[in-house]
Amino acid sequence: MIEHIGRRTLRFTDPPRILSHAAAVGKKEGEGPLSGRFDFVTQDDRMGQKSWELAESELQKTAIRTALQKAGMQKSDLDMILAGDLLNQCTGSFLASMQSDVPYLGQYGACSTMAQGLALGACLVGGGAAQRLLAAASSHFCSAERQYRFPLAYGGQRTPTAQWTATAAGAVVLGEGQSRPSRAKRDNAAGLGKQGDGHICITHALFGKMVEMGVTDANNMGAAMAPAAYNTLSTLLADLGAQPKDFDCIVTGDLGHVGADLLLTLLREDRIDLSPVYSDCGSLLFGDEQDAHAGGSGCGCSAAVLCGPLLRDMQAGKIKRLVFAGTGAMMSPTSVQQGQPIAGICHAVVIERSGA
Amino acid sequence: MIEHIGRRTLRFTDPPRILSHAAAVGKKEGEGPLSGRFDFVTQDDRMGQKSWELAESELQKTAIRTALQKAGMQKSDLDMILAGDLLNQCTGSFLASMQSDVPYLGQYGACSTMAQGLALGACLVGGGAAQRLLAAASSHFCSAERQYRFPLAYGGQRTPTAQWTATAAGAVVLGEGQSRPSRAKRDNAAGLGKQGDGHICITHALFGKMVEMGVTDANNMGAAMAPAAYNTLSTLLADLGAQPKDFDCIVTGDLGHVGADLLLTLLREDRIDLSPVYSDCGSLLFGDEQDAHAGGSGCGCSAAVLCGPLLRDMQAGKIKRLVFAGTGAMMSPTSVQQGQPIAGICHAVVIERSGA
Repeated sequence: MIEHIGRRTLRFTDPPRILSHAAAVGKKEGEGPLSGRFDFVTQDDRMGQKSWELAESELQKTAIRTALQKAGMQKSDLDMILAGDLLNQCTGSFLASMQSDVPYLGQYGACSTMAQGLALGACLVGGGAAQRLLAAASSHFCSAERQYRFPLAYGGQRTPTAQWTATAAGAVVLGEGQSRPSRAKRDNAAGLGKQGDGHICITHALFGKMVEMGVTDANNMGAAMAPAAYNTLSTLLADLGAQPKDFDCIVTGDLGHVGADLLLTLLREDRIDLSPVYSDCGSLLFGDEQDAHAGGSGCGCSAAVLCGPLLRDMQAGKIKRLVFAGTGAMMSPTSVQQGQPIAGICHAVVIERSGA
Repeated sequence: MIEHIGRRTLRFTDPPRILSHAAAVGKKEGEGPLSGRFDFVTQDDRMGQKSWELAESELQKTAIRTALQKAGMQKSDLDMILAGDLLNQCTGSFLASMQSDVPYLGQYGACSTMAQGLALGACLVGGGAAQRLLAAASSHFCSAERQYRFPLAYGGQRTPTAQWTATAAGAVVLGEGQSRPSRAKRDNAAGLGKQGDGHICITHALFGKMVEMGVTDANNMGAAMAPAAYNTLSTLLADLGAQPKDFDCIVTGDLGHVGADLLLTLLREDRIDLSPVYSDCGSLLFGDEQDAHAGGSGCGCSAAVLCGPLLRDMQAGKIKRLVFAGTGAMMSPTSVQQGQPIAGICHAVVIERSGA
């Protein structure tokens, strides 16, 4: 059952479970402040492939394979894969799952794609359309630079507000909640044990609206996305009748330093102080010395920070109640060149740890 | 409730209703065999805009606005919009809904996007995640040619197997089924009457797998997609224990003449004769004299043929049971240039007319 709470929040009466999760990242991402908290760190950002696009697809494939292994599952156990990335026609994702023989639904939510897939996946599992599914997202610095910006060899100067597209991928396997005696629970008792004793579930979801405030600078996506994050988080808190302190952690992905400051400022005007529990995946991923300017971005950034450090902290009981609010900037090189404004979007899920 | 039937078919116990539908097409499309059966035909394929991308977005906006008008609804009545197109980063769709103030979920299923949105939308409504939502898709010959092929002024010769990207858009408003006394039914009694007396519902959905048979020719998408359509349709028929003649019409979108022939051949090898009830949106849209070679394609082709002629025929009682099987070719200009194979995908919904 799915209940509608307040204006836009969905509550799952039998919350879909996160059966497993995996994060695969590039060399630079593996050397940052979150070092040692990912499942896979490549030393070769080409992943042994002939092109950056194939490298990104291989990275997403690695995250998917690892998540399935951790759940003790085969691809054939999945009812569907929801996946997306930043590449034209979502190339990284469809190549990653082309041979999977699993129903595939391409998602495009820019950098909010992981949150979109999780919110949608929770609705599909919570509503009975799927018993087990996988949500994945990826990005790659080199495939993104080539497509969105300048050739790397050009050596262009990046602006201070620019974010660094993460070479990263994340995958989550979602299954039915506790009250349904599904195949998922019977087959995977062993696999689930590996994920820790406490069950980790998606209890609520909120689909975001595009919010457009006139930003046209593709090198300041934080400013374009912050108003959407404000819209989603203030709606979610109001719908739940909750305060920020009711959560152990509220994380956006990926506003970066500039967008995160803007979000805190916007909420402060409503007398909501998010700062005690707030983090941003883009700010967490890279250290100051890593020359990432305003922080990380890309579908893979929030996907890998969630599927690595954050869900590991939930398994360990360090975080019991998390809001994961994925943010995206709706733009294309063509729309920006044509002077169209960049809209932000932000989809959110509430993830809770229950049990021991 | 959503039941799982056979291997992969979903059955909606309270089938989501198609509250309204609208199709908007370009000049050439409006002059073809389906002339007079669309809601809007533009005489200016630029739609008064400065770029082809904005023209496509305006066409999708027109389909969305018309569908809402026909249902007697406002945008604010929608819980979400599911939309997609062929442009990089799904530009046509996010620009069309940027100011809508409705939660937005970008979909990418290449030319199968309308079917993906309908199948997903039916799951969201049927599973209780949404009461009313809109699914839309579009394509534009000029924006697609520029992005995928050659500059038009180059005057390149098209191959016989090439399809013609339709300048077209379609939109469907889905609402809860008959047994739920939702807002949708109370508010829109007047609007629903305009759609005819019989209720038109989505009764079943099947999400497709990518099927890849080694095709690498982007000018022969019919061959790339036919095996996926075969996979989806033969699974659907087996799951339902049905014969082709149990349906008034089984329509794929958009295999074109080449792909449609291949599909019939593949099914014939399994002793399934689809031909008495079979059509293809790509074959229906253009006449032989319109120089469209193997037929129409593009997300907007199947979207407009469904939302125009096919659903009008259902309203009129000429078609009572329809399988709409949207086909897509998973490729990007980059993946093709890099020699990657093109996978086909095919999502299907069963649409039935009940009542008077």
